[in-house]
Amino acid sequence: MFEVKAVILLSGGLDSSTVLYQAKADGCECYAISFDYQQRHRRELESARAIALSAHIKAHQVVNFDLTLWGGSALTDNEMELPIDRNLAEMSQNIPITYVPARNTIFLSFALAYAETLGAQRIYIGVNALDYSGYPDCRLDYIQAMQEVFRLGTKQGREGEAIKIVTPLIELKKTEIIELGNNLGVPWEQTWSCYAGGETACGVCDSCRLRLAAFEELGLKDPVFYA
Amino acid sequence: MFEVKAVILLSGGLDSSTVLYQAKADGCECYAISFDYQQRHRRELESARAIALSAHIKAHQVVNFDLTLWGGSALTDNEMELPIDRNLAEMSQNIPITYVPARNTIFLSFALAYAETLGAQRIYIGVNALDYSGYPDCRLDYIQAMQEVFRLGTKQGREGEAIKIVTPLIELKKTEIIELGNNLGVPWEQTWSCYAGGETACGVCDSCRLRLAAFEELGLKDPVFYA
Repeated sequence: MFEVKAVILLSGGLDSSTVLYQAKADGCECYAISFDYQQRHRRELESARAIALSAHIKAHQVVNFDLTLWGGSALTDNEMELPIDRNLAEMSQNIPITYVPARNTIFLSFALAYAETLGAQRIYIGVNALDYSGYPDCRLDYIQAMQEVFRLGTKQGREGEAIKIVTPLIELKKTEIIELGNNLGVPWEQTWSCYAGGETACGVCDSCRLRLAAFEELGLKDPVFYA
Repeated sequence: MFEVKAVILLSGGLDSSTVLYQAKADGCECYAISFDYQQRHRRELESARAIALSAHIKAHQVVNFDLTLWGGSALTDNEMELPIDRNLAEMSQNIPITYVPARNTIFLSFALAYAETLGAQRIYIGVNALDYSGYPDCRLDYIQAMQEVFRLGTKQGREGEAIKIVTPLIELKKTEIIELGNNLGVPWEQTWSCYAGGETACGVCDSCRLRLAAFEELGLKDPVFYA
């Protein structure tokens, strides 16, 4: 029935939820993968599960490991403080301390393992090079380097066609992502973007600020409840 | 005191143990990393711990995750049977079912995260392109592709010098690895190569056969006890 199987990296946030709905719209049989890495905002996994259910996908794997073993990020070390109340100009100055070393490389590696085992042809990831954070592992040249790893590092890539990394959001602004998600029917109220780890979204961390600014620019109300 | 910090991928086998001793001989401050991925031969982790202790290194991290979630390899799916009693010619015909999809990519990704957090300059890995198994993620072109990911996918690689992947064994034959390990004083009796998951090494899986053949070719006795 489906010609293409795809693994979708699903954090439960605005971007990855839009990407899941895009993969569905592209006609893929969808297998989501999420990661419990003991992140400060593990609350996002509840959203990932809710989105996976809403989208009626084929399967959803949650992989567990512990990046607090060595920390190195404000998202994996509770001793480090999250930046708050920054404007977009402040956010874009440096790679922020919410950067998690090698996170997308770890995520894409597990997605690759899952996809090769399934015989999937595609992996969807919601990276976004225009994101103000400037995370190095969200840029196109990095994705191209991972694509080469997919080609050379797997049986499927050596013997046939490599699993393709699909990045529908890479050149979109946050407002454009929200417009795309609106067209695709993404249930925003089920998504979770906040870094802070509370019961409700904080509204002041970089991730909340970016999200709220984009909804506001579009003249829309973000249906997520903020503290 | 040390100028160079290095993360060493340590499975507890013959190759990775030799690489750890090589990193020490190279003057590195050594941080080992091992993986409990629910592999059939988790017994190798006891050897990894013993080798790490013998080598008096700075730290040893064991990262836990579960690759039996999707299986896809005779090492992560107990329903699949290990090939046994094969000669070297039989082993070299195809990529065998002991291939674990994306395993070295997952391992190197975690090593990268650990190394960047430590501020390490090098990652040592005991891949070997002459290995009869023909695993795609043990070849030089794959390692070069991962090196590019290290450069583009991390803060350290974008802002300064990328963490370097060091592969001391990549062009060595198994007999040459044993000779190198002998010179470095690797305690072979503490290492573990067998895939089968028993209390003693089976002597008939591909990994045991390769190891035994190499010791025999050198006229040496393998001190590991075989069933």
